[in-house]
Parts: sequence; C-alpha cells; structure tokens
Amino acid sequence: MDLNQLGKEVLKAQPFSQYLGMELLSAGEEGVELALKVRPEFYQHLGVVHGGVIAALMDNALTFAGGLVLGPEVLTVEFKLNFLRPAKGERLLARSKVVQAGKRLAVVQGEIYSEEPEPRLVALGQGTIAKV
Amino acid sequence: MDLNQLGKEVLKAQPFSQYLGMELLSAGEEGVELALKVRPEFYQHLGVVHGGVIAALMDNALTFAGGLVLGPEVLTVEFKLNFLRPAKGERLLARSKVVQAGKRLAVVQGEIYSEEPEPRLVALGQGTIAKV
Amino acid sequence: MDLNQLGKEVLKAQPFSQYLGMELLSAGEEGVELALKVRPEFYQHLGVVHGGVIAALMDNALTFAGGLVLGPEVLTVEFKLNFLRPAKGERLLARSKVVQAGKRLAVVQGEIYSEEPEPRLVALGQGTIAKV
Amino acid sequence: MDLNQLGKEVLKAQPFSQYLGMELLSAGEEGVELALKVRPEFYQHLGVVHGGVIAALMDNALTFAGGLVLGPEVLTVEFKLNFLRPAKGERLLARSKVVQAGKRLAVVQGEIYSEEPEPRLVALGQGTIAKV
Repeated sequence: MDLNQLGKEVLKAQPFSQYLGMELLSAGEEGVELALKVRPEFYQHLGVVHGGVIAALMDNALTFAGGLVLGPEVLTVEFKLNFLRPAKGERLLARSKVVQAGKRLAVVQGEIYSEEPEPRLVALGQGTIAKV
Repeated sequence: MDLNQLGKEVLKAQPFSQYLGMELLSAGEEGVELALKVRPEFYQHLGVVHGGVIAALMDNALTFAGGLVLGPEVLTVEFKLNFLRPAKGERLLARSKVVQAGKRLAVVQGEIYSEEPEPRLVALGQGTIAKV
Repeated sequence: MDLNQLGKEVLKAQPFSQYLGMELLSAGEEGVELALKVRPEFYQHLGVVHGGVIAALMDNALTFAGGLVLGPEVLTVEFKLNFLRPAKGERLLARSKVVQAGKRLAVVQGEIYSEEPEPRLVALGQGTIAKV
Repeated sequence: MDLNQLGKEVLKAQPFSQYLGMELLSAGEEGVELALKVRPEFYQHLGVVHGGVIAALMDNALTFAGGLVLGPEVLTVEFKLNFLRPAKGERLLARSKVVQAGKRLAVVQGEIYSEEPEPRLVALGQGTIAKV
C-alpha cells in the first residue's frame, strides 16, 4: 500500500479527524498535506477560527508526517506551535515535513495556511514523533 | 463581573468550545479549571483520545489563564505541549495558571488530567499569551 | 554511588559546564539544583545576563533531571524556554524536576532564578530527555 | 548603517558572544548567519558539543533575526529547540530567518549545522522575539 493510501485509511479510522472533517490531500516522502473546511462551529468568540482547531490540525499534520518515516504506529511526543495571524478563510491547509528521522524519533515541521482565498500562513509548528 | 462569570460567558460565546462541550469549572487569581467530557467522536484510531482534542483543550486552558491577568482581549502567541500518556478516561480536566505576567505578555502553564477515574496527568503545556 | 555524587562527577566531566562554572547543589528523586555564579563575561550588550547563558543552564538542569530517572546515558531531545525577566543578580539558580518518566523518555520542567539577592524567577522551561 | 554592520556591532558589544567567539557572517532581509568555532571547552562528557553551546548559539541566531525586523531593542520571549544529532565538527553554523513579523512580535526559525566538514543539521529552533 502506498503512503497516500495508508494515510487516508488512518485518517478515516480516526473519529476525531472525521468529526472535524479533515482530508488528506497528499502524503509522500516530501511530506503531508491536510485540508480542513472551516465550519461555523470552528470559530471562537471574536469571529476567527479557534486556536484549538488550528492546534488539532497541526497535531495531525505533524503526527502523519512522522508516520511516513517511522511507520503507522507512532505517537506524538510533543509539539510547539506559534499562531501568526487570525485565520478567516473558508479552508485551512496544513503542510508538514520530516526534518530529521532516526530509528525511533522524528523531528517534524508544519505550516498551516488559511485560504482567504490566497493561502496566508497562520501557524507554524515544530514537534517530535516517536515510534511506539 | 467576577472572573468566574466572565470566563463562563467567553466560553459560551466560543462556538468551537461549545461544539466540543468544554465547561469552565473555576477561574480566579489562582488559575483556571476546564472540563471536557470525552465523547466517542473524540478518539483516534487506536482507541484513545485524539491528541488534537487535548491540544484544543490545552489551548483554551492556557488562553483563559492569560485572560485572567491581561483582560478578555487576548490572543495566544504560542504554546508547547508534551503528551505524557494516552488518555482513556471519561472526562478530561485542564488546570492552568499564570507563572508571570507583564503589561502585554503572560507566561502560562497547563496540565491535563484524564479521569480514569482517578486523575492521571496526560499532558503538560507552557505558553505565551498577549494582550491584543 | 548516590545520585548526588554521580551528578557531580558528570558535571565535572563536562568541559563546557566547567568553563561556565556550573555547580550541582543537589540531585535526588525530587529533582536537581544547579548554581551558576554570574561573571562579567556572561552579559549581553544591555547589561543583563545573556539569554544564551540561561539557555545553557536550563539545558543542563533539564538533562540532569532526566538522567536521574533514565540513567546517566541520556540525551536532550528538545526543550522550550520562556524568558520571564532580565537577570541581574550575582548568581543563577536552576531547579528542575521530572514530571513523567517512561522507559525511554522523560518529560522535565525547569525554573531559573536570579538571586537579587532574593530569588526572582527569570526563566521557565519544559523538555524531553531520552535514554540513549 | 546597514543591517550587517549593525549586527556586527551588537555582537561585539555582547560579552558572552565574545567569550564564546561568535561571528556574524551575514545579516540582511533574508536572515542571519552566525558561526562559532568549536573549542575544547565546548564539549560535554561524551565528546560532542554541549547542548548548552548549541542552545546559546540558537538563542543569538533567533534574537538577531528578530532584531532585523523589529529594530535593535528586542528581547527573546521564548524559543524551542530540537537537537537532531550530536555535533562533532570544528565549526557550528547558525542560520535563522523571520517567518512572520508584526509591529511588536516576530516569529523566527533557526537551524544549526556542524561542519564535519560538510554541514550537517544538528539543531532546529522556533521562537518569538518582541520589541522592548
């Protein structure tokens, strides 16, 4: 099974990813792309996308990138996330990549864009993924 | 209006917090406590709570703690989160506190517990909140 | 050999820790305490201790805390550090502790105080240590 | 005064940067490059460069990148750093860049390479810089 197909199956098997509506656009050696359509229930009280939605999308993007190189049985050890701008677009796009991988640990980076409609960078992340 | 009441109103005004079902248990000088009942749609594919749920709860716990000292108009600059154990309980409990606050920035810490039914620490976070 | 003695020997065997003048005050199940006398060469251009000195001390405090529970052959996977206030005192004091430890990974927290002469918290850290 | 010249003067005015021997190779809109020759006193007990040296270099690289866009009066709010591989080369090279900048805050990324003699990526960082 190719990475793209595997990624789609894992994402489909995650109730929370389905609940939010995450889609895997691509997965390969070069990294992962996830998309998330913004629904009215994703906002916070000031009319922009809630940071928790962005954090959840970053978590998935980073973990999937780690799974590309470490295999599907991974867990997210930790990640750090900077919020760069409020997200107001109709869709969020996450791109992540593996920066370095050993046998048990991978270091990953991720970016989240808000399509307004041109993609604007709204969050930047860096994390560590471990093979279970 | 007291901090507790204000916190409840902000939480109620956040569609995403309502969508997940977050509850403010307490808010005061000593910090914030949020609770989140785990629903079937919150799991990932291995049968434990999805990291994205925990990240979203941490985001809210840290931001609310910052809002206690900086006022309600705050944004989360960044946070970092370690996942300590899989969360399997029926409810998540988040506790956060302000470690240091200036006029414009506050540094906050947060812990998330899974009630199994005794509370087990499942995530640890540290972040920076800014007055808008 | 007790943890205190072991910690002192590792610290003595680290040329960089000796170069800066780090001292291990205590090491035990409850965590680690390191001290660093501030010398004129530790400042930055605005007359306070350089962030790099604080980062180096945090790195050591976190790694030593991890070594308490994982054994002496550890490496620092990552850490995050907030600078809370400028440090102007004559000595820095670092306190770190293990928050959670598994077989291969430990999550640690650290605080750095500047003695002015009362200890003021100047930095807060959170990191991940791995058994080699 | 151009950014390159300004950066060199700030670096020269920092006793700790001089103590370690940091050099500014370039500073401009595209980011900052710093170099640090590895001296015997920079090692830890296992014969590789101490994490504290790498953390100090990362701190400077990130802060200088923030200073490019926010002006020379900046402070490092926080940063996060992953150690990717042991550094064994004769010189460390740090490259940092601004990912996003507002009026008061900039988000920066940095990489540290060990010249062995080909540059190998040994650390990855992400941080937040504020105008004082």
